[in-house]
Amino acid sequence: MKSNLSGANYIAGSPSTLASDYFFGHNATTGEPMETRFAEATSDEIHAAVFAASQAPTLSPAQRADLLDAIADELEAIGEDLTELAGLETALPAGRLNGERGRTTGQLRLFASSLRDGLAQEEIVDGALPDRQPAPRPEIRRRLIPVGPVAVFGASNFPLAFSVAGGDTASALAAGCPVVVKAHPLHPGTSELAAQAIYRAMERTGTDPRWFSLLHGSVQVGTHLVNHPVVRAVAFTGSHRAGRALFDLANRRPQPIPVFAEMGSINPLFLLPGALAERGDALATGYVESLLMGVGQFCTNPGVVIGIDSPEFTAFQAAVAERLDSAPIGTMLSAGIAANYNQTVDRLNGAVTRLTNREEAQAPRLFATTAKAFAEHDELREECFGPAAIAVTAADVDELLAVVAALDGQLTGSIHLAESDAAITGGLATELGRKVGRLVFNGFPTGVEVGHAMQHGGPYPATTDSRFTSVGTQAIYRFLRPIAIQNAPSELDLPF
Amino acid sequence: MKSNLSGANYIAGSPSTLASDYFFGHNATTGEPMETRFAEATSDEIHAAVFAASQAPTLSPAQRADLLDAIADELEAIGEDLTELAGLETALPAGRLNGERGRTTGQLRLFASSLRDGLAQEEIVDGALPDRQPAPRPEIRRRLIPVGPVAVFGASNFPLAFSVAGGDTASALAAGCPVVVKAHPLHPGTSELAAQAIYRAMERTGTDPRWFSLLHGSVQVGTHLVNHPVVRAVAFTGSHRAGRALFDLANRRPQPIPVFAEMGSINPLFLLPGALAERGDALATGYVESLLMGVGQFCTNPGVVIGIDSPEFTAFQAAVAERLDSAPIGTMLSAGIAANYNQTVDRLNGAVTRLTNREEAQAPRLFATTAKAFAEHDELREECFGPAAIAVTAADVDELLAVVAALDGQLTGSIHLAESDAAITGGLATELGRKVGRLVFNGFPTGVEVGHAMQHGGPYPATTDSRFTSVGTQAIYRFLRPIAIQNAPSELDLPF
Repeated sequence: MKSNLSGANYIAGSPSTLASDYFFGHNATTGEPMETRFAEATSDEIHAAVFAASQAPTLSPAQRADLLDAIADELEAIGEDLTELAGLETALPAGRLNGERGRTTGQLRLFASSLRDGLAQEEIVDGALPDRQPAPRPEIRRRLIPVGPVAVFGASNFPLAFSVAGGDTASALAAGCPVVVKAHPLHPGTSELAAQAIYRAMERTGTDPRWFSLLHGSVQVGTHLVNHPVVRAVAFTGSHRAGRALFDLANRRPQPIPVFAEMGSINPLFLLPGALAERGDALATGYVESLLMGVGQFCTNPGVVIGIDSPEFTAFQAAVAERLDSAPIGTMLSAGIAANYNQTVDRLNGAVTRLTNREEAQAPRLFATTAKAFAEHDELREECFGPAAIAVTAADVDELLAVVAALDGQLTGSIHLAESDAAITGGLATELGRKVGRLVFNGFPTGVEVGHAMQHGGPYPATTDSRFTSVGTQAIYRFLRPIAIQNAPSELDLPF
Repeated sequence: MKSNLSGANYIAGSPSTLASDYFFGHNATTGEPMETRFAEATSDEIHAAVFAASQAPTLSPAQRADLLDAIADELEAIGEDLTELAGLETALPAGRLNGERGRTTGQLRLFASSLRDGLAQEEIVDGALPDRQPAPRPEIRRRLIPVGPVAVFGASNFPLAFSVAGGDTASALAAGCPVVVKAHPLHPGTSELAAQAIYRAMERTGTDPRWFSLLHGSVQVGTHLVNHPVVRAVAFTGSHRAGRALFDLANRRPQPIPVFAEMGSINPLFLLPGALAERGDALATGYVESLLMGVGQFCTNPGVVIGIDSPEFTAFQAAVAERLDSAPIGTMLSAGIAANYNQTVDRLNGAVTRLTNREEAQAPRLFATTAKAFAEHDELREECFGPAAIAVTAADVDELLAVVAALDGQLTGSIHLAESDAAITGGLATELGRKVGRLVFNGFPTGVEVGHAMQHGGPYPATTDSRFTSVGTQAIYRFLRPIAIQNAPSELDLPF
């Protein structure tokens, strides 16, 4: 690898070396520590990063667009080094990581082009009515302005697309908010390479480096960052436990701030009788592919598949189990994540029927249960992060709807149907729609599109704020707030 | 008065009489209890109201528009009884209450016409790309759907416009969310009349009465309501203490829900040297009128006026003090609110210079302090609910900007300027804009316009969520969340 890693925190462009605590990244496949020693950010460094962000000069939408394009260019310019290092740190395969880099640069460039097209710059104007009785109406112009410095938490499972230069950073910068990233400790080297790319892009575009800082560390660093009075919003993708902890912290501040935590879900997938009869085997193939994608470490992994009791649904389950038993066993993102997965499937082993045969650590699993048991036992409705799923058999349509009623909020819900399922579809889709951020028909939820219409979010506990998305151009609205400007002198030029 | 008051809670259209605790409204002018005995809602009644709301059938935007128009008609049909009773309960004068009813019916009708024009029904569509490589893109349609039952807390200071049939209820119904109102105990009779009007409108439009319930009670009823698992959002206008308590409650729920609390602010008003030289006396007149409006009991009451040390600013303060000393003394909304006001001004008496002479309870007050003291002493930057203000003298422009830096989030900030103030205006407006939801030039902040561009909100502690407004058509977005619908069969008709 040609790239140089310093292991330092980067504060407004400069490496900072106040640390007394250090940690190492690990080779996710071998478990061995890697070469570079990374510095845990101190409280002084956290303060310096946030304070610098609060002092960053305003950027126009055009300047932000140029910066985002330049970051995309610089991420590409790193070449193979970036995906090789990410591969070592995460055990994700090269094809997946190249795709993820494409997604990352694609979303940076989508924000850039959308800003040039006027994204989030629309104004609402109530014109002056000087002759209105009993009192004249002044002109009021409503526009959106940046909320201020944003703290972004890198996610373990997307070392590029939901990390240092990922969607949260892209949307915050697009909104005009300076960013302080807390790198995920499972890929600190990849994080540093991305941060270096951001600074090169800033240098090339003449952007003040106070617009970005990178901090390494663990829970204490994150806590300190969320509690810093100058931070104005938090973006996070990860576990429910960590997301809720950040949400609670932020709400207990003297001045509470919004936390946009995307915390995953079980993404129920409904197979209607007509669809199973028409294409049960193809559904099994598609389902297994979706379930195994990224070793099941996707927020939209379809962890629950539901059908009505029938020979076709039984055959579907058998086909899925057989394919899972012969699939290659992937390497998970870290030993800790693998251990969690193994514990969860062991617990499910005791609670429900297992349809797969393999018992090796990290092997895919399919379990089976009834709609009644699924509705009654909370632990069956909790996310299992990894390639395991539960097949839920409903006795009839009423039980299918009872499964929906038992669901918590979800990122996605999917329905596979055929024309003959028309009598069931409307009612099911309506009830399922009330629980999810994205409703998928005849498709699998993994492979989230980055576009204008995407909603990657959903009612709690899928996220802490169902009114916003963390993927796609609408993600910019997380970091903007309206201001009404009344009767402004025409010559006044406000920078926001 | 011809109208009949039962004193009951109304659950989905029917009076409910499970109560064992009762209270009386009071004549705000005499302090005497009024005739009707009101029932405190029991926990069973709270549950019944919320559960009914969760079962209310969907209404189309056109049906919601008809309902909102009908509510406006029925509020008008009550005639003088409504404003007479509100006048007894709040001591607000008839002219003000007639104006407030006009505002209330106006905003109901504005939501109705805006719904007919497509408000919040816009879709974002990413069309299908069946030939895209390496994978086709499915069609994704993003639309907004109602979040579910909304708890609305009536405000003491607007018995019509921010109460039972006020802006929060109007915007929640417009969004398609059933509403449960917790009436403010300072105007329970006015609340019942408004609820009766809503039910008459529902009957007339064939609306299921589960769309609305009215509960009476105190803190326990509000707490129970916010903690009910089926409630999906909370709207509140009132004090910081109560708003923050509801916000904390809602965030501690197993499933947290958003609280839109508008908690008032001190609404700083800056008088630049050119404006003072050009029209100091007119500014004093306008300022006094704004400060005394509604006996100072407005969220946008301009409680702090800031100028640069000069004979003109000294003369302005003297003119304001003189007019306040000869103004009629208004009656406040309740004995408790008056007592709070008197305590606050007594505390300020000890801390800063008083410019007005009168010492009677509820009399208007003007105090004076320096920019330095204002920035240093937190208690000078806290809202005084009532007709009292602090004049802050800055030595120079730098001190003026230091006052802005010391401010918390505000609903409004105002700047009065003349052409000769151009050198100061841009910098001041930029810094002040970062602290406020509405930036007013050459105007006074009271008299909030109900329109499309209004932002009645602002950074904490003015509100708990600066990204939303509680006045104007944009208030509807508080109660909607996006859903992405992927690859839906063309014949599928979803009710949201």
